[in-house]
Amino acid sequence: MTSRATNEGLSETIIALEKSALEKWNQGDPSGYIDLSADDVVYFDPFTEQRLDGIEILKKYLEPIKGLAHVSKYEMLNPKVHAVSEMAVLTFNLFSYEGDNVYKWNCTEVYRFEKSGQWKIIQTHWSFIRPHLK
Amino acid sequence: MTSRATNEGLSETIIALEKSALEKWNQGDPSGYIDLSADDVVYFDPFTEQRLDGIEILKKYLEPIKGLAHVSKYEMLNPKVHAVSEMAVLTFNLFSYEGDNVYKWNCTEVYRFEKSGQWKIIQTHWSFIRPHLK
Repeated sequence: MTSRATNEGLSETIIALEKSALEKWNQGDPSGYIDLSADDVVYFDPFTEQRLDGIEILKKYLEPIKGLAHVSKYEMLNPKVHAVSEMAVLTFNLFSYEGDNVYKWNCTEVYRFEKSGQWKIIQTHWSFIRPHLK
Repeated sequence: MTSRATNEGLSETIIALEKSALEKWNQGDPSGYIDLSADDVVYFDPFTEQRLDGIEILKKYLEPIKGLAHVSKYEMLNPKVHAVSEMAVLTFNLFSYEGDNVYKWNCTEVYRFEKSGQWKIIQTHWSFIRPHLK
């Protein structure tokens, strides 16, 4: 992953994987993220009490969310990929529009290149931009 | 980084780097994190309006915080490192005690092995565990 062209191609690949899972999510379908996550994935969002460890726990957490999200429009702002040969970090801000609401997110996804030849998420961190604080 | 022993050694190295910067931070000194971050670092916390890009912007953001933190005790819960040869992802929950308050955090740090032979942070994401929501 030393040439600029290769890095640009990798960024596009990673961003396309993310958008594909996100677009399913936006229609209430968590299967895109579940299928894209590795067995040893770790996960944070604003509703978790502590880090979630492993795909089975993540599945149990995400599956009940099925059908709940109805995002009519999203903007992925300034997606950026830092990569070495076997790992890539995607960061972005996200605006998700549901009805009259807009939800504003920070997101970090870490992808690892697996022996299967696929890129899989090993770490997800979603947080709200400037939530109301205690 | 294929042997278990090597991976355990790397985990210890990464966690030690993080604790060293964190312990300075807890005494109001952001220089540990600034020195540990790469030129192309990206950064999120609950107070940023959008992702911060690059060490100069991060310095400008962190330097005014100098002297403000007085953490009397911290607990780094379940730190975990996922690594390939040139990149390592550290995740943990953190409880920081200041006076009568306890602040509960999610944290993701991505470290990259630099040509200089040092591990440097290229991505930081701090968020509150279950903040009050809008």
